[in-house]
Amino acid sequence: MILTVTLNTALDITYRVRSLRPHTSHRVTEVTERPGGKGLNVARVLAALGHEVTVTGFSGGATGRIVQDQLTAVPGLVDALVPATGPTRRTIAVVDELTGDTTQLNEPGPTVTSAEWSAFQEAYEDLVPAVSAVALCGSLPPGVPVGAYAGLVRTAKAAGVPVLLDTSGEALRRGVAARPDIVKPNADELAELTGSHEPLRATQDARRRGARAVVASLGARGLLALTPEGRWHALPPTPVHGNPTGAGDAAVAGLLTGLLDQLPWPDRLTRAVALSAAAVLSPTAGDFDHTTYEKLLAGVSVTAT
Amino acid sequence: MILTVTLNTALDITYRVRSLRPHTSHRVTEVTERPGGKGLNVARVLAALGHEVTVTGFSGGATGRIVQDQLTAVPGLVDALVPATGPTRRTIAVVDELTGDTTQLNEPGPTVTSAEWSAFQEAYEDLVPAVSAVALCGSLPPGVPVGAYAGLVRTAKAAGVPVLLDTSGEALRRGVAARPDIVKPNADELAELTGSHEPLRATQDARRRGARAVVASLGARGLLALTPEGRWHALPPTPVHGNPTGAGDAAVAGLLTGLLDQLPWPDRLTRAVALSAAAVLSPTAGDFDHTTYEKLLAGVSVTAT
Repeated sequence: MILTVTLNTALDITYRVRSLRPHTSHRVTEVTERPGGKGLNVARVLAALGHEVTVTGFSGGATGRIVQDQLTAVPGLVDALVPATGPTRRTIAVVDELTGDTTQLNEPGPTVTSAEWSAFQEAYEDLVPAVSAVALCGSLPPGVPVGAYAGLVRTAKAAGVPVLLDTSGEALRRGVAARPDIVKPNADELAELTGSHEPLRATQDARRRGARAVVASLGARGLLALTPEGRWHALPPTPVHGNPTGAGDAAVAGLLTGLLDQLPWPDRLTRAVALSAAAVLSPTAGDFDHTTYEKLLAGVSVTAT
Repeated sequence: MILTVTLNTALDITYRVRSLRPHTSHRVTEVTERPGGKGLNVARVLAALGHEVTVTGFSGGATGRIVQDQLTAVPGLVDALVPATGPTRRTIAVVDELTGDTTQLNEPGPTVTSAEWSAFQEAYEDLVPAVSAVALCGSLPPGVPVGAYAGLVRTAKAAGVPVLLDTSGEALRRGVAARPDIVKPNADELAELTGSHEPLRATQDARRRGARAVVASLGARGLLALTPEGRWHALPPTPVHGNPTGAGDAAVAGLLTGLLDQLPWPDRLTRAVALSAAAVLSPTAGDFDHTTYEKLLAGVSVTAT
């Protein structure tokens, strides 16, 4: 069983409109919605790969109920979300049919009370000892202390459970210092953490800050990994074009399954890159096609750097 | 008891953002939501004026449940919405904090099945004999026949219950021909119905098409009414500036209460104009302040034309 934590769960809504023009009225031609927030996206990929996965974090209000209703439909996924009084946020991606461009509107999420945060920590402490890995994913909702992930990393380490951290800003800075097993920043998050836009140097800096392994997702430039076993650069067989939303979450799922299967790092990176590329190629953000994934697996290149 | 019909109910969501820029990501700073669709807006004004009001139309899915939950909180309002399989639509108004301008995103609404439409008609036929007036308001959701309002007008008339129609396009064209007691088009709807942009001529044409009384809402130019008692032009004491959303629905509520109180037409128009102006002056779209309304009542001018 893998545990993914999504403190700021979301209902991700996608609207298609012919062309978004500010200060006019638009008829939405297509509406799709699904549970979101990085940890829920990771969990969905893990479940699609046949893993048992428990999700926790906060769920509140009518939007939280919709998220939870949709999660019950995912085979292999166990809902352990903790109630919050404030409503789970909606995110709206408005896709312009003419250009394919997306305009994003993100609600802030519920303000979590200190009692709710304590209740979550207790629930997390109960869940951690029974799982084989933990992934801590995404932004913190208002009210959750900025050092939250550092505490959650320490709880997992105290229980001897490997923990991956995928967040940004000050929450990442504090979380890294608590020495997680893996951090997976993207290029922007890595630059913000380290002040360096040079990926190799920045990845080395991030590792010195406390992460046992750093896997930087560099978009079309693949993954750069610094680990206790060595350092590698992993690339898909050919550049892939499509929707990058959810590609990072698919990579996290690949890293987690590789960790559970005790694969050598190059094989973990192969899985992560293939899943990430398959997600980019999928018409639905964050989904992936199994046949595409398996074809990609055969062609990923991993080079020691 | 007044009955308002909203076939295409909605959850109206308002987002405030600093400045809407297409193809970028936005943090929503404030989220408000409330039941919407013209008939529900009219009902809320009626309830705020102390009238008992029953609402019907369709409600579906998770959004429909949110709408119905919020309606139960309105004193004096009875929920008689009929279930639909498809989800009630959301409308999103994105308010630009820098300019005050609004960008509107409207979901299409559920596709109503013929069985659902039949169930609604039966429910409506059961409700109509017990009420003192009916208001048929807003657009038709997909699947509802374009002659829907014509049939609903005939049912009300057969039961001897006065009926007001506030819709647009072909639904208005067909509905007017069924001889409703009042139609309340705005300037655009009137021009589309009649082909004339000259309000007096267009209002006369609309009346010839079958409406017993036509009350055209002309925005800042007030109300123009052609009735069996005469014709009038009604204006607020001073031009009002604010949010025009819901002003037309407030006018409909004023016309309905004037009809129930058997007021002479000039007094009905006074109420409609004062409510409409109070709605424009309210910071929250579609709400109104009672004191402002009563002050405005004293200053409305109604001129025979």
